[in-house]
Amino acid sequence: MAEASETKAPRGVRLVITLVGRTNAGKSSLLNAMTGQDVAIVSDVAGTTTDPVAKAYELLPLGPVTFYDTAGLDDTGELGALRMAATKKVLWRTDIAVVVAEAGPGLTEAERAVIADIRRLDVPFLVVFNKTDLASPPASDLAWCRDQGIRTAEASAATGQGAVAVKEAIMTLAPAEALREPVLAGDLFGEGDTVVCVVPIDLAAPKGRLILPQVQVLREILDGDAVAVTVKERELEAALGNLRRPPALVVTDSQVILKVSGDVPDDVPLTTFSTLFARYKGDLPTLAAGAQAIDKLRDGDTVLMAEACSHHVQADDIGRVKIPRWIGQYTGRDLHFEMHAGHDFPDDLERFALVIHCGSCMLGRMEMLRRIKECVRRGVPVTNYGVAISKVQGVLDRVLRPVLR
Amino acid sequence: MAEASETKAPRGVRLVITLVGRTNAGKSSLLNAMTGQDVAIVSDVAGTTTDPVAKAYELLPLGPVTFYDTAGLDDTGELGALRMAATKKVLWRTDIAVVVAEAGPGLTEAERAVIADIRRLDVPFLVVFNKTDLASPPASDLAWCRDQGIRTAEASAATGQGAVAVKEAIMTLAPAEALREPVLAGDLFGEGDTVVCVVPIDLAAPKGRLILPQVQVLREILDGDAVAVTVKERELEAALGNLRRPPALVVTDSQVILKVSGDVPDDVPLTTFSTLFARYKGDLPTLAAGAQAIDKLRDGDTVLMAEACSHHVQADDIGRVKIPRWIGQYTGRDLHFEMHAGHDFPDDLERFALVIHCGSCMLGRMEMLRRIKECVRRGVPVTNYGVAISKVQGVLDRVLRPVLR
Repeated sequence: MAEASETKAPRGVRLVITLVGRTNAGKSSLLNAMTGQDVAIVSDVAGTTTDPVAKAYELLPLGPVTFYDTAGLDDTGELGALRMAATKKVLWRTDIAVVVAEAGPGLTEAERAVIADIRRLDVPFLVVFNKTDLASPPASDLAWCRDQGIRTAEASAATGQGAVAVKEAIMTLAPAEALREPVLAGDLFGEGDTVVCVVPIDLAAPKGRLILPQVQVLREILDGDAVAVTVKERELEAALGNLRRPPALVVTDSQVILKVSGDVPDDVPLTTFSTLFARYKGDLPTLAAGAQAIDKLRDGDTVLMAEACSHHVQADDIGRVKIPRWIGQYTGRDLHFEMHAGHDFPDDLERFALVIHCGSCMLGRMEMLRRIKECVRRGVPVTNYGVAISKVQGVLDRVLRPVLR
Repeated sequence: MAEASETKAPRGVRLVITLVGRTNAGKSSLLNAMTGQDVAIVSDVAGTTTDPVAKAYELLPLGPVTFYDTAGLDDTGELGALRMAATKKVLWRTDIAVVVAEAGPGLTEAERAVIADIRRLDVPFLVVFNKTDLASPPASDLAWCRDQGIRTAEASAATGQGAVAVKEAIMTLAPAEALREPVLAGDLFGEGDTVVCVVPIDLAAPKGRLILPQVQVLREILDGDAVAVTVKERELEAALGNLRRPPALVVTDSQVILKVSGDVPDDVPLTTFSTLFARYKGDLPTLAAGAQAIDKLRDGDTVLMAEACSHHVQADDIGRVKIPRWIGQYTGRDLHFEMHAGHDFPDDLERFALVIHCGSCMLGRMEMLRRIKECVRRGVPVTNYGVAISKVQGVLDRVLRPVLR
């Protein structure tokens, strides 16, 4: 087993692990066997009628995870079809899948079909042959899995035998992303460098404070043995003139990027807080590629404005009014914008020409990565508010340059 | 009446207003008449047996105040003496005193004695002649007050007549301090200046954050149209070398003042966050004078380490161990240190050669000013942790120079 210190998940990371298998494969009892020893049930998330049930656990030493216990693969009839659709929907947002088969019969058509689905979605997975107290898995199935490079484990949920091994196998499948503290700005400058942060102070700024993203970047500059120069946009030019050696990086609030991009010489790397957080919270190359889809929007296209939480009042204006207006002006197209808030995308995501996601201040990195991945899996370009704003302001290439190198 | 916008108390300010008078003068009913209209009772603070009762009010437009309704001045017997001592104790921490007399008899020996006490303590006060529905105040008393420069008001708590005038008179007595937003650093630099903040990042510093005092100073620099350079002590010298025009001010964490005072040229103003907050939260000249009392400590003297709150665990080490050790080393004297936490000083405050108060992060400015004033009234030198540390580190004169000018 890997060291706890290495596998411990950073704050805000909550892996989604989904169990799939036929009705009698023993998914629920395997989950209990795996988690019974060192686990606390944190909460039950109620699903809709056909939705699989989500359970939040602390899976030591990995940290917080959500297990989805899905309906049986062999469920038939109309309800069964709905349930299969629901299972697929869960797989879209799954980090690790666990295919649970009975050791006796081994891999039937049902398991092979779901394995094919999982592979198409590029979800890391393993096959668990359960009920080894009753029978051993067929040698031919083990050989097939080995040939296909599929990781397997054997367990008996009834006796508890092998449950630890399954847990360990799950942990080895955890994406590296989940085990790494993401970097905000620390890789963009060297020891002793100067980094300039441009922080407009408008009337809305809370008195006596700086907003958290600004403080986080300041702190990373200090942690990286560099010097932070913080300045409003009005004093930026003079501040740059007062430095003998030019800064290694200028980071600005997106609101003032046009003025700042005029004041910062072309050879000085310039980016925005939004860009740093798009990378910190998500998959910046995918979000940057998604922003290019703005150029391809056609009359009548529908754009999904996706917000992570429904109580995010401040974002209404930017997501509901400003960005739609800017994109309309920039493209000159007749577009429809739909707002969707919550932990799920609409069922008919494929109907949208583009997804523009909020800055996900309320989401952990893994959750945002999962949402980006779901768009990619479903073939819909995805970007976020900050990246989209830089795109329509014509500064996207410049603000990406320091970060995507 | 003054404009609400001018008299509105800044956050954290809570004036203490104490009513004194003889048993039947109608203190409580006057308080009710004054506050009944636009006041909400926020809480009742339980006093000890002989303590006056404190009531928290929102006295519009002044803001939050605490009224102390004291025992009768003419209370006799042993309990009466205790109550008089308690009243005196309350006067020590009073911002405004209201002497309530009955209009009929006017000012008796009891009122004249307490007026003399209040004057010795230098507490702003007014005399209210109550019960004007029954009689008018003696012309000779009104003349005497006028001669003495004592403000008077007339009221009938029974009818409510004059209650508003009393409230208005109280407001005109509110110390200017209570009506002014205190300044942290904004007066120490000009527009376009550079201010360097030295922020050591030790292991105890919370990840991804800066502590609030640092952020508050940064914000004042931006609000003042200046440029903030934030740097750890290790990179300070290089950061100063990279500036074409020297900074208007360097502000450092006290922990690294010795290294910093070596790296900052003598002609560059240098102070500490503690010094700025000693001024922001209290009366810096008095705290600076109090620190000089460290030089006068003699063998056997007792020093009071006063903390504003008992749950301030982090400060234990600095207040209970480090400062006593540093002062012992600095003075070479055999000293006793006593720790006292809570909203009151010990009854026998006069027994201490010096009071060293905590940084009062949990106290508002007015509360800290009141505690300083109480020490002054009782003849005990008072300083605070930050100022005392600069004193024993031998840098007090230098860090005071930019601030006490």
